[in-house]
Formats: sequence, structure tokens, C-alpha cells
Amino acid sequence: MTKNIAILGASGYTGAELIRLISEHPGMKIKALGGNSKAGQRLSQVFPHLRHLDLPDLVKMDQIDFSAIDLCFCALPHKTSQEVISKLPETLKIVDLSADFRLRDPADYETWYGNPHTALKQQKEAVYGLTEFYRNEITTARLVAGTGCNAATGQFALRPLIAQGIIDLDDIILDLKCAVSGAGRALKENLLHAELSEGYHAYAIGGTHRHLGEFDQEFSALAGRAVKVQFTPHLIPANRGILATCYVKGDAQAVHNALEKDYEHEVFLEVLPFGETPSTRHVRGSNFCHIGVSADRIEGRTIVTAALDNLTKGSSGQALQNANLMLGLPETQGLMMAPLFP
Amino acid sequence: MTKNIAILGASGYTGAELIRLISEHPGMKIKALGGNSKAGQRLSQVFPHLRHLDLPDLVKMDQIDFSAIDLCFCALPHKTSQEVISKLPETLKIVDLSADFRLRDPADYETWYGNPHTALKQQKEAVYGLTEFYRNEITTARLVAGTGCNAATGQFALRPLIAQGIIDLDDIILDLKCAVSGAGRALKENLLHAELSEGYHAYAIGGTHRHLGEFDQEFSALAGRAVKVQFTPHLIPANRGILATCYVKGDAQAVHNALEKDYEHEVFLEVLPFGETPSTRHVRGSNFCHIGVSADRIEGRTIVTAALDNLTKGSSGQALQNANLMLGLPETQGLMMAPLFP
Amino acid sequence: MTKNIAILGASGYTGAELIRLISEHPGMKIKALGGNSKAGQRLSQVFPHLRHLDLPDLVKMDQIDFSAIDLCFCALPHKTSQEVISKLPETLKIVDLSADFRLRDPADYETWYGNPHTALKQQKEAVYGLTEFYRNEITTARLVAGTGCNAATGQFALRPLIAQGIIDLDDIILDLKCAVSGAGRALKENLLHAELSEGYHAYAIGGTHRHLGEFDQEFSALAGRAVKVQFTPHLIPANRGILATCYVKGDAQAVHNALEKDYEHEVFLEVLPFGETPSTRHVRGSNFCHIGVSADRIEGRTIVTAALDNLTKGSSGQALQNANLMLGLPETQGLMMAPLFP
Amino acid sequence: MTKNIAILGASGYTGAELIRLISEHPGMKIKALGGNSKAGQRLSQVFPHLRHLDLPDLVKMDQIDFSAIDLCFCALPHKTSQEVISKLPETLKIVDLSADFRLRDPADYETWYGNPHTALKQQKEAVYGLTEFYRNEITTARLVAGTGCNAATGQFALRPLIAQGIIDLDDIILDLKCAVSGAGRALKENLLHAELSEGYHAYAIGGTHRHLGEFDQEFSALAGRAVKVQFTPHLIPANRGILATCYVKGDAQAVHNALEKDYEHEVFLEVLPFGETPSTRHVRGSNFCHIGVSADRIEGRTIVTAALDNLTKGSSGQALQNANLMLGLPETQGLMMAPLFP
Repeated sequence: MTKNIAILGASGYTGAELIRLISEHPGMKIKALGGNSKAGQRLSQVFPHLRHLDLPDLVKMDQIDFSAIDLCFCALPHKTSQEVISKLPETLKIVDLSADFRLRDPADYETWYGNPHTALKQQKEAVYGLTEFYRNEITTARLVAGTGCNAATGQFALRPLIAQGIIDLDDIILDLKCAVSGAGRALKENLLHAELSEGYHAYAIGGTHRHLGEFDQEFSALAGRAVKVQFTPHLIPANRGILATCYVKGDAQAVHNALEKDYEHEVFLEVLPFGETPSTRHVRGSNFCHIGVSADRIEGRTIVTAALDNLTKGSSGQALQNANLMLGLPETQGLMMAPLFP
Repeated sequence: MTKNIAILGASGYTGAELIRLISEHPGMKIKALGGNSKAGQRLSQVFPHLRHLDLPDLVKMDQIDFSAIDLCFCALPHKTSQEVISKLPETLKIVDLSADFRLRDPADYETWYGNPHTALKQQKEAVYGLTEFYRNEITTARLVAGTGCNAATGQFALRPLIAQGIIDLDDIILDLKCAVSGAGRALKENLLHAELSEGYHAYAIGGTHRHLGEFDQEFSALAGRAVKVQFTPHLIPANRGILATCYVKGDAQAVHNALEKDYEHEVFLEVLPFGETPSTRHVRGSNFCHIGVSADRIEGRTIVTAALDNLTKGSSGQALQNANLMLGLPETQGLMMAPLFP
Repeated sequence: MTKNIAILGASGYTGAELIRLISEHPGMKIKALGGNSKAGQRLSQVFPHLRHLDLPDLVKMDQIDFSAIDLCFCALPHKTSQEVISKLPETLKIVDLSADFRLRDPADYETWYGNPHTALKQQKEAVYGLTEFYRNEITTARLVAGTGCNAATGQFALRPLIAQGIIDLDDIILDLKCAVSGAGRALKENLLHAELSEGYHAYAIGGTHRHLGEFDQEFSALAGRAVKVQFTPHLIPANRGILATCYVKGDAQAVHNALEKDYEHEVFLEVLPFGETPSTRHVRGSNFCHIGVSADRIEGRTIVTAALDNLTKGSSGQALQNANLMLGLPETQGLMMAPLFP
Repeated sequence: MTKNIAILGASGYTGAELIRLISEHPGMKIKALGGNSKAGQRLSQVFPHLRHLDLPDLVKMDQIDFSAIDLCFCALPHKTSQEVISKLPETLKIVDLSADFRLRDPADYETWYGNPHTALKQQKEAVYGLTEFYRNEITTARLVAGTGCNAATGQFALRPLIAQGIIDLDDIILDLKCAVSGAGRALKENLLHAELSEGYHAYAIGGTHRHLGEFDQEFSALAGRAVKVQFTPHLIPANRGILATCYVKGDAQAVHNALEKDYEHEVFLEVLPFGETPSTRHVRGSNFCHIGVSADRIEGRTIVTAALDNLTKGSSGQALQNANLMLGLPETQGLMMAPLFP
């Protein structure tokens, strides 16, 4: 039976990406689109590329009858999300794409996001949405917290290595190259085409990026002790994509073996042959993550690279993958589209 | 029953696009991939973005058992295509994406392409593949000739207006803006990123572009007399997309009415509300063509704009749409994916 | 003797371009930078690419001692510009880059810009700043009005043809392809990199673009009777450049001869050999305008293409060229830098 | 007195960049342009953006009268360069932009470039062209070897730190982001716009990039013992720019102090305020290198970032800076142009 879906925050990029994906999903139908600031508009006004779809108009959240909804995606800004979700029916299945429920410890949340958490009850029940590693918990969860897109990329590259202790836990560097859609549709000067194109730079340098909260939480839990990584993101003049270049200390072949073995049955995580490197252009618009392992010329130094599409596997594709599990649908349903190249 | 598909010329962009589309088509399966110069390679070496697919390796054409094939796509360069197709089994259904069978008159072919046609028998039976206008002929055809991508765009904008005589037939200007993938994967200096990006220019100016052969053939047939248009293409620093800006003389409202009426039941041809203009970014990766009509401030002057993705609706999507008809499948099957934006 | 220069509106793109150009001008020195909203900031905070220059900090306009200034560039938004300029000393030489003083008839100004002109005295004395055609008037002017960047491009392509009556004055079409910096540094959703890159579209279609006011004024004056052109701009995913494709009726060779003859001694206006077409990439960052003429296959139809950099020859370079004349300096001083390619 | 200049290899990007720069140099004049494969062509055919310049046509090398030349730039491919230079007059001043004379030890050259060096005599006399660090030697040199563009960027970031021993010499990681013009004008599939734009990837991963030869040579000489760094370049969809993100172990403030002090009087090396990060867009087309230092959240970890334009400060600008010294001209002459932004 077709599942009825609501999307809150449908006028942002992750909202649009959810609609794109669900429009071809055989088991879901979009019944409500929430977008407070643009309520009353047709979605084709906000996203003309979706004009061929027969979709409900954007409405205010309180106009939605959630009793008819099987699962609700929240693609709202952080802080807004916790306010909204705390008011939604307690039985409603929710996949949240914001940062609000990613960190288990409310103190961590306040540290990284600067404001106290106001939906502690929901925070407690939320399951971290990195599908491949929390599959069982997600399947039975009511509320799943989508991961940060950078956090997902780094974890796909490193989790098995940290869990198995085959790399030096005190010397991990993640140099990330992020495309611009990860910054959302906000009007900021540095996101203008004339500012951004033809140039690139590091930002949130030195360990200030909020996704570090997720790395700390997850990597420490895996290792059973505190693990702190270095993480420097860079903004690249492209629309979609994250490339993580991870510098670790450990045997390259052992690293490759660990990733290959752990991801052997994972449809979306593809470990390339040893020595090959992935490219963001080869995962664009898809739910795949390509992972490469290379040995450095210096013995004992290994480079793990991982590429995914921040809007798909990094957020909305991941969210749909989780929703499939929560609704008892096949995990990969609606997610097997090939990347768009060129 | 699933239809068995072969693709010749699988290492070019239209070949890759066919594979992308067919990979999600519920009624087709790729059984053979021909690519002479890269025979013996795995497709994932040639197109790493397709590495998740379970595909046959590239082979030489004569290694393919065509008796097991229901339909063959030929995505070869023109001239090569006619040589190959003349040697294929006479009963094999074929959709050709080259220029070789688009022009009905062999003399026209020689005029525009510079060499005599060497597969006259096949040329005679070929049906022009502009689906929305040759649907019946295509359904029963054995050999369908895919149209030029520019030719398709211009015809979607203008055919109803010419057929109904509501514009001046002697004063039609098509100013086209073409993305770079239309030039294929050939190694040409002007297609390098460092040359092409951040700049744009007109090419084949003054009526020398080969797609004019198609415009002349089709528009003249529609009008019942010779119609010659002006056509100037421009190369734009983007990967996918054609935008046609057509300057015609006629009443704008009548033009809009004619297009709306003729395309009322066409799934892929969307006529925008009067005065709105389409954008290539809103059809990227999809089989849709968006069409806009605006009145100029000078009375009796009308501007028709049309946008499509040259690799999808302009070639491989069109080819698949035709193949669906030829194989008795639903015309839109495998073609309803939403555009990729941003 | 070095001339002292002030720039009002130094925090926008045309302001930055003026500083870039003047920084290498041997006869000018920047003494004051006005930027009300960013007053108090160092210019290197607003434009880090200019950090190597020894420049005054941004100040509010009323902090500037204009008695020490030889010439003031106003790079302010229209409407603001007329308010500011009407309060500046009456003897101060000014080059205005806004739209406020381009149209001679106050009624035309109100028609195209929607508000009544409030600096009628200054408007009356302003000289239209298309250097190559108003050289004498500019040399002795106190107030020069920089032209629209699109208006400049179209006029370079067409003025000699209209003045000499060698094209049909009632059937002129300008299809312009404009890069994004022409839209300025304003925060608009459609100017975001994620929205703009990889796509393109027509805007202000049908004769609503304000630069038509300039075309009407200038072309009609040249012809001695009303001339109305069709003008459709398109937004292209590149940072700098305007390409005008002009469709006219007239003999192509005569058109080429007229342009070659009229521009024979113009340093910045280069007419290409007959049949060649210019590219925006070959004028980027320079004050040159490349112009091409081609015959269409239809007899009597001619295509004139012109390419320039909207921020240089289209605005700030033109402004500096005019300032040179007004200050008695060599016209080309500080303007001979080669384009930046690739 | 004006110096007469020859450029060999004028049809590549570094050749074109030399011409762009020299065209505005008050003390140099281009007397000969060598380009074997394009001999006989006018430079405006090869580089239309330089058509405004009065330049000699391209000729074969043996057609050049070197007795009239004060200094010759060689912008040829490596291996070709050593063959050519060994045949040039022994008294001719030469700035070579190839890789042929960068490595002092012939065995190192063979290791990294795969072929034995065939101009050992010239190699012996060649001076390494990193101007700021070899100024005296360059001033009196006959033959100067331009550095690798990546090698220059990394050295500007790290030399003072290695020389002063304030970072751990055994744990230095350089993650470089390189724009595409660094790959030259060669026809390679992966450099096509349709392949490259909208995606990015690591290449020459694991310590195989040839510029490591320079890092090893220079850093080891500075330290007085073997120093081996990790170096991973990435190809970014932009035309100009290199951004080096260097991960080092040492005190961030000490690192910043060392760079500020050593570069205090260097016109082209700008150390940003502590904690700020440079962007390639802010040095485009200029000879400046911007350097930033940030502390990581992990104590004792420091990130040094450096940005320059690979065609200017990374090759042709550096070459001109060296030529100025060799010819007794002011070091910065012709090199003070501001970056082009946007």
C-alpha cells in the first residue's frame, strides 16, 4: 500500500531533492508540502524544475492533517526543527534532516550550536541516521536524525578503520572539498555566482565546523575512548559533491581490506580497487558513495578518499533510505538511479 | 516480457545517457555494448559513474549475437553509422542517434554532410524520430532516425506555428544557446575546460550548421512550400542544455494558443503560462521540454523560447521514447525522472 | 601632475573594477573611497583581492573633502546617484556609472525607471558617455553619464549602420548574452551559484529591459526618426562578458566595410576579418570590444556580433576612458592591459 | 634601454601569460616568438585575446636571430626544453619554465622524469628560480629554472618553518587544490569541459607527483637532513589557482610570526592576519601569494594555507620577476597588476 508522505521545509534544496526522489518512488505519495514563508504558492513557482509533477500547494504547517500521513520529512533549519517536531503528533514517524537530533548529549548540542536544546524528549528517542551503521535501530525508530553531509562522508571513509583500531586514533586529518549546495539556498554574498565561481578557499578552519560534534560522538563511541580528528572543509565552485581526503596512519592494504570487507554487501558504498580514487562527478545526483584507498610513498601513511553527493547520499537520499526502513519498504527502493554525467 | 537491448557506440555521451536511462527502465535489459575502439574494456573504466551497474563488457560489433536482441541503439558518428547499419540484420529494430538517416533526400544528405549516402535502402525506410509528430510512423517502423538536438528544440518551438500559418514564414530567426556536451567527447582544443569555461561565442554562423537540413526539410513539408529559417548556435559554458530563442512575426497570443492546444496532451512538452520563460537548468537530466511565449513591445513580434536537455530529450531520451513505441511499451516508461536541480 | 580621484560606491563590482584599473594608472591617485553602508571598514575587508594596495578606508560621503578631488566616480545605484550628485560641488568633475543621467528627456527617465527625476539641472548638463561617439563633448564636460553595459555593446555593433542607413531600421533584433556580474553584488536568489551555474535563460523579454531607453534615444537621434529595436537579454553562467548577436537586414559586406571604416582609428573597437566571430573570453578583463560580421545564407540578412567585458569596456573601463579625456590625459592611459585568458 | 625578448613555446598557456605580462612591461619588447608546430601563424590565430598587440609572427626556433635578444623565455615541454636550451648560444640569458633544470642532481631528474638528462652542463649552471629565496643567485645567473607551480605554493607556505625548525619535519602534509590551466593546453579527455566542470578528484595520489622532487631537494637542503612530505594534488573545476592546505605540527602563533617576519619586505608574499584564510579568487591574474595561518582545536596542530595563480606567480609571473633581476630591472616591474575579481 502506498505510503502517504509530508515534507516540511519543501522550499529548500533538501526539500526539492526529496520531492525529486519521491516522485519516482513506487511506494510513496506526497500528500502535503509545508513551507511557512511560501505558503499559498504552487511548488512550480518555487521550483520550476518540478512543474511536471502533480503536487499539493505549499501550506503552513498547521494546515496539514497529520493523521493521514505515514511519515514526515522535516527539512527545516536547525533550531526551527526542534520547535516544530516537538509539536507534531507523538506517533508520527519522522525523518529529520536538520542538525537538531544528531547529537545525543544535550550539552554537546549546546556547545556546537550555541543554544540550549528545547525538545529533550524527542532528542532522547532520536536515532542517528547513518543507515549502514544504524540499520536495526532505524528500522524500529519513530524519529531518525539525518546526519551532517560532511559527517556522513567522513564516517563512510573511516568508521571501519576506527572500529577495528587499524589506524592511529590520535592522528586523523580530514580535508574536505564541499560543493556549494551544501550551504543551502540562503542569500549570502559569498554564495553568489560572481563571488564563488572560479575560486576556492578553506572555511571553518581549525576545528570550528559543527559537524565535528558528530565526528567526536561517533568516533569516540566506536573506539571506546575519546577520538578527536582534524577537519578542514573547503568550498569548491561546483553545485553538488563532497570529496573527503583522509590522511591516516596505518597500513594501506589493511585499510583497503577492512573497508572492502565491511562494505561487501552495502549497495550504496562502493570501495574502488586499491589505488584508484573517486570523483564527485561520478556520483552526482545518485545515492552512491565511492571510496578509494591509496598508500603514500611514506610507509605507514594511507590516504582514504570518499565522494558522495551532499544532497542525495549526504542528506535527502539518506533520509529516503531511512524512511524506507521505517516504513517496511525495501531499503533501496527509489534510490537506484544512476549518477548524472556529464 | 523484458526486451533485450544492444547499444553500439557506448563509449560516447549519448551512449552513456542511454545506459543511465535504461538502467532504471522496468521493461528493458542491456545485453550488449559495442565500442570498437574500447572493445575489451569494462564500461566502468570508460564511465566510472556507471560502475554500480551489472553490464556486459564492451565488445566489437561483430562479437554481438543480434538474434538475441530486440532493439539496437546506434550511437555512432555519422557516416560510420550508415556503414554499420547497412550490415546489421534486416529485421533488427534500430534507433539511430546519428545524422545519417534524418534527411530523406540523398542529395540533401550530401549537401549538408559532404559525402554521398551509402545506405540508400535503409535511408528510404527510416522514419524521422521526432516522436510527438511522427508517433504513428515510429510505432511501426523498423529503423528510426533520431533528430538533431538543435533541430528538435527549434521544431518544438515552431512546428505548430508553421503548420497553421500563423507566423510569417519568410522571417524566422532561431538564436540557439547550446551546452558543450552536444559537441560530444571528442578531443578538441576549444572544448577544453580552460578554453571554454567563463566565455561564450557564436559558431557555424550564417546558416552553415548541418541541422539546418532538418529545419528546411521539416518546415517546408509542413508549410507545403520552401521555408528557410535563420539559425545561429552559440556555445555556452555549461554541460547540458539547449535554449532556443525564436524571433517570429505573428500575434503572440495566437502563438501561445496554438502551442498550448497542440501540446495539451503531450507529457514531455510543457507550454508555460503566457509571458514566462523557460530555463535550461529546470530540465537538466530530464526528458521535458519547456516552452515559453512572450510578446515583444513591437506589435506583431513574438518571441518563442524552448529549453531542453540535449542529451536527454535532445537525443538519448528521445531515442528511448521512440524505442518504447517500437517495442509496444508505454511511451513514457523509464522517462519520467524529474530534472536534477541544483 | 597626478590627479586626485574619489570613488563613491566603492563596495560594488564597478567600484572594485575602477580601483583595479586606477591602481595601475600612472596619472591618477585614489584619495577617497565612499561607501556609506560599509563606512569605517578597510577596503581589504570588502575586497580582499585589493589588499596589496595602499588605499584610504571607506568613509561616509560627507566625510570627503571634495576640494582636494580632481574627479569623482559615482558607482552608486540609480536614484541614489542623482540624490548624491545633486549635492556634490557644482564644479566637481564627475563620471557617473549609474543609469540616472543617460536619458536626456526626463519623461523617458520616468518611463523606464518608474520615478520622476530629481536632479534635472544636472541631467541637463550631463553628456552621454559612449566615448568613441561623444569624444568632444566628453572632453569638455563636467558630468558624464556612463552608458548601460548592454547599451554600449549594441551601439558598438550598430551605430555606424544606422547612421549610414545601410540596414533596415524597422527590423533590428539584438539577442544579448550577459554574464552575471552585470547584475551586481545584490543578494538575489537567482544569482546564487547553485541556482545560476549550469543553466541559462532569457529575462526582461519582450522589450522591458531599461537599456532600451538608451537604444531608442541614441538610434533615433542617429537616424533622424524613431527607431525601435527588439532586445532580449539572456543570463549566462559566467562572471564577465556581454555577447550581442544582432540580426539585421542589409548587405553583409557593406556592413563590414562601414564598421571597419568608422572604427579604423579606434584603439578599443576591433573589427574582425569578415566572417569571424568574437568571444567574450577573448576580451575578459580588458577594455577591448571585438566585433564580427557574417552574411547569413539568406541574401540580405547579416549578423553582427560584438563582445566586451561588461565591467571594463561596459562600465568602469569606459568610465576611466572618459575621465582621461575630462582630465586632459591620454585617452587610453591605464587601459591597455591585455585580456586575461584562460 | 628596452630589453629585447624572445619566447619559445609561445602557443601554450604559460607562453600566452608571458606575452600578456610583457605587453605592459615598460622595459621589455617581444622580438621573437617561437612555436614550431604553429610556425607561420599569426599569434592572433593562436590566441585571439592578444590580437590587439603588435607582435611578430610565430616562427621556427632556427629562424630566430638570438644575437639581438637580451633574454629568452623557454615555455616548452620538459625534455624538449633541455634539447633546445643546449643548442642556444652559451651567453644568452634564459629563463626556463619547464621542469628540466629544477633538480640539481641528474639522478633525481631521472628518477622523477623517467629519462636521463641530456644537458648536464646547463643543468649544472642553472639556478632554482624561487625568486624570494634565490634572489642573489638569480641576479647573476645566465640560466634560471622556473619552479613547479605546486612546488612554489608549498614552499611559500613552509620554507621559513622548515628552515627555523619550528615544525615537526617528519609529519608534513600538503593537500593541494589545483585549477585546470596547470595541466596545459594538451588534448586530454579528462580536461574537457564536459568531463571536468562540476566535479573534482585527487590525482597523482600517494607521493607520485613530480613536484615532490623539488620539495625533497629544497626542504632537505633547508633542514640539513632528509625531509619527505606527503603531497596530494586535487583537480578543481576552475581555470586558475592553486590552494595549498598544509597540515603541520608546531605552534600556530610561532608559525605565523615566522612567516610574517620572513616575508615582511616581500612585495608579493602577503601573510594574512592570524586566523584568516586566503582564496584563489583573490589572487587571480596577479603575482601575489596570500598566506594564512590558523590553529587547529588540537593543541600543537597548525594549518598553513597559501593561494596563488598558477600561471602568474606559479610560472610566468615568477619567470618575469626573475628576468627583471637578470636584466638589472626593478624586480616588481610589470608585475603589480591587481587581481581580476570577480
